[in-house]
Amino acid sequence: MCESKSALLVIGCPEVPVQMSMVIYLTHKLKRSGWDVTVAGTNAATKLLKVADPEGHYVQKMVDLDKLIADVVEKKIDFDLCFAFMHSDAGMTYGATFSAISKAKLYAVVFGKNAEALGESIDYPAEKIVAVATHNPAPLKSKIDKVAL
Amino acid sequence: MCESKSALLVIGCPEVPVQMSMVIYLTHKLKRSGWDVTVAGTNAATKLLKVADPEGHYVQKMVDLDKLIADVVEKKIDFDLCFAFMHSDAGMTYGATFSAISKAKLYAVVFGKNAEALGESIDYPAEKIVAVATHNPAPLKSKIDKVAL
Repeated sequence: MCESKSALLVIGCPEVPVQMSMVIYLTHKLKRSGWDVTVAGTNAATKLLKVADPEGHYVQKMVDLDKLIADVVEKKIDFDLCFAFMHSDAGMTYGATFSAISKAKLYAVVFGKNAEALGESIDYPAEKIVAVATHNPAPLKSKIDKVAL
Repeated sequence: MCESKSALLVIGCPEVPVQMSMVIYLTHKLKRSGWDVTVAGTNAATKLLKVADPEGHYVQKMVDLDKLIADVVEKKIDFDLCFAFMHSDAGMTYGATFSAISKAKLYAVVFGKNAEALGESIDYPAEKIVAVATHNPAPLKSKIDKVAL
């Protein structure tokens, strides 16, 4: 467990354009609310994030997702809050994984064309933030803005 | 024409994830090389860009693409350099438009799954930067990095 308020953002393959923007937006928002934020992603996702934030103004802590899962399983690290971004079965699996291994309060951030069906299929304990958003970030942003941080 | 070195980035519908990251990266790179940078995009594209850069660290000048086209046609504004991002026929059309109406040196930044076929079909004067990139920004980034600014 952590000493202070720590938040984790989990991102899978960046197939849907809104994901990267929302990850930067939410990281920035959490940091401004005093959270210590880590973003864990696949190789493609973290590469894309580094290019989108070349000076590291928004995202300071970025880690490899598979390595982080191993560290949480081994209880080397954990978080108070976890936002798992998902628009596909792969993302769903990452959400289920963190639900099982972490003590963090889990938010499932579900987006993309099939967001509603995907959101309904979540059967692990998580607060769901669901918006059918692919290019336009507004629907997802307005739901994320309603989460009390 | 403009008094100082001015660059324009033209972005269409943000269907391909690498676009937004590369626009931020290139804007930042151009600014560091002393260019005055404007990004012109569709409504969805500029919204996504604002969310991806919430404090405006990277992109300061953002304008509506259709309004800008009208202004260039009316010779109210022009640029020295124009990078037109394209991954679809719509993007191709914007490139052709700027080739016709602007005196800027034009770069056609072609990406997405069909980048090569799309790049070959460009029949207006433009320097082509073509990379089959959708999620992984590395192929496009390395080609953009070779452009002398």
